[in-house]
Amino acid sequence: MSVRTPDPDPDWTPKPPAGAQNTNPGWLKDVELAEIRRRLPILYIEAVPVRVDGLGQVVEVGVLLRARPTGEMTRTLVSGRVLYGETLRDALFRHLEKDLGPMAFPQLPASPVPFTVAEYFPMPGITAYTDDRQHAVSLAYVVPVSGTCDPRQDALEITWMTPAEAASPGVSAEMEGGRGTLLRAALASVGQLY
Amino acid sequence: MSVRTPDPDPDWTPKPPAGAQNTNPGWLKDVELAEIRRRLPILYIEAVPVRVDGLGQVVEVGVLLRARPTGEMTRTLVSGRVLYGETLRDALFRHLEKDLGPMAFPQLPASPVPFTVAEYFPMPGITAYTDDRQHAVSLAYVVPVSGTCDPRQDALEITWMTPAEAASPGVSAEMEGGRGTLLRAALASVGQLY
Amino acid sequence: MSVRTPDPDPDWTPKPPAGAQNTNPGWLKDVELAEIRRRLPILYIEAVPVRVDGLGQVVEVGVLLRARPTGEMTRTLVSGRVLYGETLRDALFRHLEKDLGPMAFPQLPASPVPFTVAEYFPMPGITAYTDDRQHAVSLAYVVPVSGTCDPRQDALEITWMTPAEAASPGVSAEMEGGRGTLLRAALASVGQLY
Amino acid sequence: MSVRTPDPDPDWTPKPPAGAQNTNPGWLKDVELAEIRRRLPILYIEAVPVRVDGLGQVVEVGVLLRARPTGEMTRTLVSGRVLYGETLRDALFRHLEKDLGPMAFPQLPASPVPFTVAEYFPMPGITAYTDDRQHAVSLAYVVPVSGTCDPRQDALEITWMTPAEAASPGVSAEMEGGRGTLLRAALASVGQLY
Repeated sequence: MSVRTPDPDPDWTPKPPAGAQNTNPGWLKDVELAEIRRRLPILYIEAVPVRVDGLGQVVEVGVLLRARPTGEMTRTLVSGRVLYGETLRDALFRHLEKDLGPMAFPQLPASPVPFTVAEYFPMPGITAYTDDRQHAVSLAYVVPVSGTCDPRQDALEITWMTPAEAASPGVSAEMEGGRGTLLRAALASVGQLY
Repeated sequence: MSVRTPDPDPDWTPKPPAGAQNTNPGWLKDVELAEIRRRLPILYIEAVPVRVDGLGQVVEVGVLLRARPTGEMTRTLVSGRVLYGETLRDALFRHLEKDLGPMAFPQLPASPVPFTVAEYFPMPGITAYTDDRQHAVSLAYVVPVSGTCDPRQDALEITWMTPAEAASPGVSAEMEGGRGTLLRAALASVGQLY
Repeated sequence: MSVRTPDPDPDWTPKPPAGAQNTNPGWLKDVELAEIRRRLPILYIEAVPVRVDGLGQVVEVGVLLRARPTGEMTRTLVSGRVLYGETLRDALFRHLEKDLGPMAFPQLPASPVPFTVAEYFPMPGITAYTDDRQHAVSLAYVVPVSGTCDPRQDALEITWMTPAEAASPGVSAEMEGGRGTLLRAALASVGQLY
Repeated sequence: MSVRTPDPDPDWTPKPPAGAQNTNPGWLKDVELAEIRRRLPILYIEAVPVRVDGLGQVVEVGVLLRARPTGEMTRTLVSGRVLYGETLRDALFRHLEKDLGPMAFPQLPASPVPFTVAEYFPMPGITAYTDDRQHAVSLAYVVPVSGTCDPRQDALEITWMTPAEAASPGVSAEMEGGRGTLLRAALASVGQLY
């Protein structure tokens, strides 16, 4: 028997309090979002949290472990939708805080250029990435964190690995939507894929 | 009296033939697109067409001159929306062909990483870029073209400039939505901003 | 018995004609170069030749096969020293021509930024790269070629592989100085490492 | 009359104590270095120190002010030679400490890829960069610093500027060797060149 919270929507955004009128036009009802997801590519950010040494070299990579409502465990990265009116930096910071907690102290990159752009399609074979809910385009960043990571959602844990472990076929096989490829691209971008 | 075609929507996409039923769920009626534009950031690609010498060095930059329906002339870059189900490469190629004609022979970059990401907001002051229709996030690429550029839309012309001319305050002042900043970032990325 | 030409020095540079006085101060006698190689890091460029499709996507990777004087075969990439007074573009072009022949028609990148910087040290364990002759720092580029590759040196052949083959452990094991790592970083940079 | 310390060699490296035998083959006597500088391109790193806000956005840029032995003041960036046997990260850290002091707490980038590569030639007109002593190739990085900068050399001061000030023609005109171009490329790479 599991008391785990069911898998929250990774696109979760604060809902208005009950009875309040929603005044943010960018806020979407689930049914609206589901409809739009069949009409337009949806913009995401993703982050690969890392620990660096005193010379900036990546020594550990943080991979999220998520409990699916089915009880199945999968691995993923910090990931989420960019909202209407939100800058990429704000979205990155919001999703890092959502997935790593308020004490992670992420050092967001000075450059807005991602290490790669991952294109997720509902059907496999177009790219390395799939997402059965939608066509999503994700700007992916490597983000050093210097604080304590404590995922706020009950269904999430963070596992720290060496670059070699993170690049291994075993870890890749457990990652959602082809994100093993994304993780290896992240490692290559910081000179840590061997 | 002007016989120019009114300024076409830069997000123009092929419409289904009259009488045919539109079966592409990614096709949006104007009213639907207008609605979605107030709810979600819209994904764009942009391209800075360039001429290169035999060693790959940029020697000229192509800037589009567009006649607005009002008769006003503004400068812009190759730009357009990414459609549902379309890869970034397909979108880049489609918009390059739309704006430069079928004989431009663009050499799309091997890497999917843009030289910068431009964030357009309806209200000024958040970033250097504005778009009063929408919140758009644009992945911007420098694209060498080796053929003949012949914009297919009547309202467009292409002007080839040296990097120094393209970076000048005069050209910047004529560019739509803050794209003078984008053009300078493009030049800096290829080592041609002095 | 082998009639192959002995492995030429990959840093080979044109020697002055016999009897002529060498007036280029950047030209180094072998003994001078050997001496300097123990005193300073030596600047190199490296290129990964690729074939791209009409949308710029990498479909094949060119790997050089080199016969060592011992008869041993190893794999490598286009690689060579930057000479005094030579621009990086000139060095890239010269080494591409030396290793791929005059009809390869390489499309040198518009940007001077390499996809990675490889640091070779005489002793293993400092980085992924080793070179027992020297401390070399190499700026590495992915270079599409559209022509016919015909290595000018007898001891070289070029093998075209799919990205998946090029990234395989078998190919990596045959590559000189840890360049399997460089090849995978090149593939990751163009979104072709899975 | 000036009591300032003469302009120290920016390539300064620790000399062996008097009477001790120098056992590091990478250590070069001034006359040897002068000789090699006419024979080979010399590898440098450069760093643009920046202050970032909580979202990683660059808000200030540090520019060094240097007193020449002639009393003339010029502006420059953190810059120095990579020594034999030294990694790029070690060289970056050493020169940051040399120019900004031990309490600057630089956050070296996780990626080894520079924002640009600057090629300095003794004669003007080949690139935007000149160095009358040598042909130098410099890998340039943007480096956030979170501590207190206190240049250790008497002839140096650091001035913090907004991105707009740093990009101004006035500052560019005061910068050594064409580094105004380098500074603008740094700002463009972090989305702060307007």
